[in-house]
Amino acid sequence: MPEERIAPVAVTRIAPGSVTQNEDVLAVEEPLEIRAGWQDREKNISVTMRTPGDDYDLAAGFLFTEGLIRSAEDIESIRHWGSPNVVRVELRVPIDASKLDRHFYTTSSCGVCGKSSIDAVRIIGGGQAILPVRLIRDVIHRLPNLLQQHQSAFRATGGLHGAAIFTTSGDLLRIREDIGRHNAVDKVIGSLFRDGATPLSDSILMVSSRASFELVQKAAVAGIPALAAVGAPSTLAVDLARELGLTLLGFVRDGRFNIYAGEVA
Amino acid sequence: MPEERIAPVAVTRIAPGSVTQNEDVLAVEEPLEIRAGWQDREKNISVTMRTPGDDYDLAAGFLFTEGLIRSAEDIESIRHWGSPNVVRVELRVPIDASKLDRHFYTTSSCGVCGKSSIDAVRIIGGGQAILPVRLIRDVIHRLPNLLQQHQSAFRATGGLHGAAIFTTSGDLLRIREDIGRHNAVDKVIGSLFRDGATPLSDSILMVSSRASFELVQKAAVAGIPALAAVGAPSTLAVDLARELGLTLLGFVRDGRFNIYAGEVA
Repeated sequence: MPEERIAPVAVTRIAPGSVTQNEDVLAVEEPLEIRAGWQDREKNISVTMRTPGDDYDLAAGFLFTEGLIRSAEDIESIRHWGSPNVVRVELRVPIDASKLDRHFYTTSSCGVCGKSSIDAVRIIGGGQAILPVRLIRDVIHRLPNLLQQHQSAFRATGGLHGAAIFTTSGDLLRIREDIGRHNAVDKVIGSLFRDGATPLSDSILMVSSRASFELVQKAAVAGIPALAAVGAPSTLAVDLARELGLTLLGFVRDGRFNIYAGEVA
Repeated sequence: MPEERIAPVAVTRIAPGSVTQNEDVLAVEEPLEIRAGWQDREKNISVTMRTPGDDYDLAAGFLFTEGLIRSAEDIESIRHWGSPNVVRVELRVPIDASKLDRHFYTTSSCGVCGKSSIDAVRIIGGGQAILPVRLIRDVIHRLPNLLQQHQSAFRATGGLHGAAIFTTSGDLLRIREDIGRHNAVDKVIGSLFRDGATPLSDSILMVSSRASFELVQKAAVAGIPALAAVGAPSTLAVDLARELGLTLLGFVRDGRFNIYAGEVA
């Protein structure tokens, strides 16, 4: 693991009967600005507070899960741009302005006010259908431990979210960590997207966090048919999963889980 | 607690040796669009995924902690606008366009890329100094339990963040909950801001979540001299707290806590 994800910080620890001065290891938080360029145009797409590392995965994953690009072929190159906190994605395809508006609508979730949130996601996903998936209970029970075993920085800091994509047989395809749960998901999806592995049918996205509307949305855009969360889902996450035919599992831990949408054999 | 914050959802529970069908209670997640109007102008300020309830506190708190307004007097009225998911804040003062740009820079954290994040916060806070505060260890130890006791919806769902403002003697001033930790903080600060109680010197902001850069920033704008978090802080949260003279405590639970910035007697 690159050292840049965690950093030592001086700390005074107060415990029953003791005060000690030592060092703590914290998750690094830094902003990342994502810019897209195509032909002679450039657009500032987004800025997010993220943990450094896997920045190219994050940029690609963000552009993909927000519906701005469809395929790894759309990317000419990705590089840091004058600062470790700025990434520029050179595209082979233009981002049309209306799509960019819709994108901002959606990341800021504005497209879901007042009108149907489901429609907004369908627009982004390009109407891509979620293929039915067969999930096995024993596989689900194994996922939280597998996620934790591979989540090295979290163990050190207690401050990072993990997101992993597994096959439906429980084999780990990819794992990423970030201080933000949306970023962790964009990184792990972006990494496989850059390999040309999307849509990720027959896979499970496991997150160490809660499951919100936006995580279901990102999974759906990537064609992932199942989202499993260590924490609770929100009502809107359940609504969206049921509407899209995506399997949604919550409180996946300690040999238990809850099925909020879909089925597990 | 209004019912709208939590909602029943059908669930299948898988546990060792049992499969049961029943109801779970989940945190409600819905988008909120915040619009500001002044004179004959209107601006769409922000959209956030939030838990319904205390929407006026959220809108006022967001405008305040992002540096767009300075005093409760700046607000003429706040009301829902054609939808339970849209709130319009009528202002007595104009929001100048450059400030709005800077605002978007900061909420999206763009102002902190490349150049000094500390400067960006100072601009927003209007250079307001954090007054030194004297914190007592026994008071800090009591805060997590007080937060949890008052956080009714969290106990039901496990899916809501709590944010509470206490006096330095440990008396609860206000508490709010939300599915998003930034929103919980905006709600609790916004509620006291609307009462004309800001700047909140001699107070402590306690959050059930981790402490990120943006939470330190919001506390600082409200003049709150101490932030205590149940979870871990990020590196940038520590940097900002030290720079501003704000006391930052992490892992405040189980009779322990860590001091990352400032002092506790």
